[in-house]
Amino acid sequence: MSHHPGIFKPLPARYFCHPEEGGATNVETRLSRLPGYLTPNRQFFVRSHFDIPELEAADWRLTLTGDALSREHSLRLADLERLPRVSVIRAIECAGNARACFARDFGTAAEGAQWGQGAVGVAEWSGVRLRDVLALAGLEDGAFHVLPEGLDSGRFARPLPIDKALADDTIVALAMNGEPLPIDHGFPARLVVSGWLGAASVKWLGRLEVSRDALNTYWNTQDYTLAGPDYPAEGEADGIPITTMPVMSLVDLEDDARLGAGDTILRGRALSGEGQITAVECRLDDGAWQNATLHTPNIAGAWVCWSLTCQLDAGHHVLQVRARDDRGHEQPDSMIWNDHGCLYNAVTRVTFYADDREADCQPQERLTSL
Amino acid sequence: MSHHPGIFKPLPARYFCHPEEGGATNVETRLSRLPGYLTPNRQFFVRSHFDIPELEAADWRLTLTGDALSREHSLRLADLERLPRVSVIRAIECAGNARACFARDFGTAAEGAQWGQGAVGVAEWSGVRLRDVLALAGLEDGAFHVLPEGLDSGRFARPLPIDKALADDTIVALAMNGEPLPIDHGFPARLVVSGWLGAASVKWLGRLEVSRDALNTYWNTQDYTLAGPDYPAEGEADGIPITTMPVMSLVDLEDDARLGAGDTILRGRALSGEGQITAVECRLDDGAWQNATLHTPNIAGAWVCWSLTCQLDAGHHVLQVRARDDRGHEQPDSMIWNDHGCLYNAVTRVTFYADDREADCQPQERLTSL
Repeated sequence: MSHHPGIFKPLPARYFCHPEEGGATNVETRLSRLPGYLTPNRQFFVRSHFDIPELEAADWRLTLTGDALSREHSLRLADLERLPRVSVIRAIECAGNARACFARDFGTAAEGAQWGQGAVGVAEWSGVRLRDVLALAGLEDGAFHVLPEGLDSGRFARPLPIDKALADDTIVALAMNGEPLPIDHGFPARLVVSGWLGAASVKWLGRLEVSRDALNTYWNTQDYTLAGPDYPAEGEADGIPITTMPVMSLVDLEDDARLGAGDTILRGRALSGEGQITAVECRLDDGAWQNATLHTPNIAGAWVCWSLTCQLDAGHHVLQVRARDDRGHEQPDSMIWNDHGCLYNAVTRVTFYADDREADCQPQERLTSL
Repeated sequence: MSHHPGIFKPLPARYFCHPEEGGATNVETRLSRLPGYLTPNRQFFVRSHFDIPELEAADWRLTLTGDALSREHSLRLADLERLPRVSVIRAIECAGNARACFARDFGTAAEGAQWGQGAVGVAEWSGVRLRDVLALAGLEDGAFHVLPEGLDSGRFARPLPIDKALADDTIVALAMNGEPLPIDHGFPARLVVSGWLGAASVKWLGRLEVSRDALNTYWNTQDYTLAGPDYPAEGEADGIPITTMPVMSLVDLEDDARLGAGDTILRGRALSGEGQITAVECRLDDGAWQNATLHTPNIAGAWVCWSLTCQLDAGHHVLQVRARDDRGHEQPDSMIWNDHGCLYNAVTRVTFYADDREADCQPQERLTSL
């Protein structure tokens, strides 16, 4: 097994942008270029911590180990393919999505890739339930943590509590939008931990440890935590380890987009971890808050597309957007600082420009150029 | 422009079967091999009436004509791309799907491709509303029919009433599951007429005529009608022109499948034209009717996946399945004959075999072999 530094798939500028401090392994989706509800594989954002392993399906093994299993076990792909299949349409969103907004709001950048709003995507993931995989090694009572570990060069690993590991929609995915997992997205097998931060959905899965005790790693104690002056340390962590993603709305616009003046349809998406979005409200400049139209489908754990018809005068504009979910969560007016710049979800604010000369404008409210 | 006889994409036997009388332009999806909810482009059934045109995006033109438009108009792809984009997840199902069941039930084959149950698929279609396209040529009051015509070798064409043409989810699709339309599926542009027979969703769209009068073609008068002893002729047609697809359930099993005996999960899909499925019931051999579990998503106009856990004794079995929708429709116990063998939707019946030697079995309830 060799490791490849960077990303395999083509990264044309019309689909992707490169966040500052993102390095060679991270790339962000231009939401304005999505053709519809699902994010095509070739347009899905990539966030990898280490170099990517080049794996052969025939050589791949998943090792099951730990004191809460009856026996150690090594599985091949064919063993997984013998289990009942499941498929879920779910978002995967980086906990650092919209991190660049901390710099905008606080005047200080949080550490890490300065993501705009495109470190998120929705795909149909097909595979088998993690609980069916664990059962093959005899899962015992008293299990506390499941630690999935990747085969990337840094063996990325972050633990899950047993309840989430056993959930109906926690899966070992073998396919993404009906295709074998692309190498950038974890070929041949990755976790999909519905509604949780993307870092939980470990790629290039190679090992699962199931323990009666807590299994901590750097990734739930020193990173992917809410840490800072306003957050208490919790156990071995420097703050509160992140689990579910919060309610958030996104706008299908580039920063400082140039739109045509006149009648326009503004569009975006909204999502909320494991929940379902019930309302999206928009405010243009100093106008009143208005309800955006929610489109179908609206899948819990994935996202909903919204739109707002409006009349744009020529000149600069500010659009604010806030979403609510079925669990009573809504986007706050402002954020509390956290050192890792995670879970930014204050009321979404984008600035753009409306121009009388339509020819100069960006293809917002237009189809992706195919 | 040249025409290609047959189908462009690879047709591996694990994804497709060739219905009798299907010729070189038609191929059926093996439902047992679908990885999840959406049908990947490479696994989508193909039903073409004529040879496929090889078109260049840059050369493509859509001609708008007819006495209910203010002016004749010719559009390029770039003109469509300037319209508001829409995306819908919808089934396309051939009106002749399950036609082979007529031969089984009546002892006489209806004319045409002897489809099993796989002349159906669900994809995300992205493009622009047909009504926005018609507006570019000044749609006038009093329009009655819209006739879309394809650029295939036989200029396939079948009219739509204006109300359906103007519906929110009647679209000119430019993409399928986030990819440009594959050539087999209508590149660069096709109609998607939600909930109607597949023949309404004209591929390789080249012309739209909008008329104040009825515009009949062979395809709504001599074919794609319900015709026969029990159906009256209607206007110029030999029967009743087919519009909406009926409620129908499908089983993700091959004919005469060989499954493992013991605990098994039987799976399938159910759909109903423009409606949403509310219940699926199954009956195994002489047992009672039981409710199958419906999975998410359940999108109106697309389909819902269902499953039933059961205990299979070794030997032959018969599974019956019937679905209901939110409009009060359900599958009838038996069909009335129609000459073209369309809209078969009597209670679904499949026979299969349960075997103690699991190694011989088919990968039902297993992932597609990737």
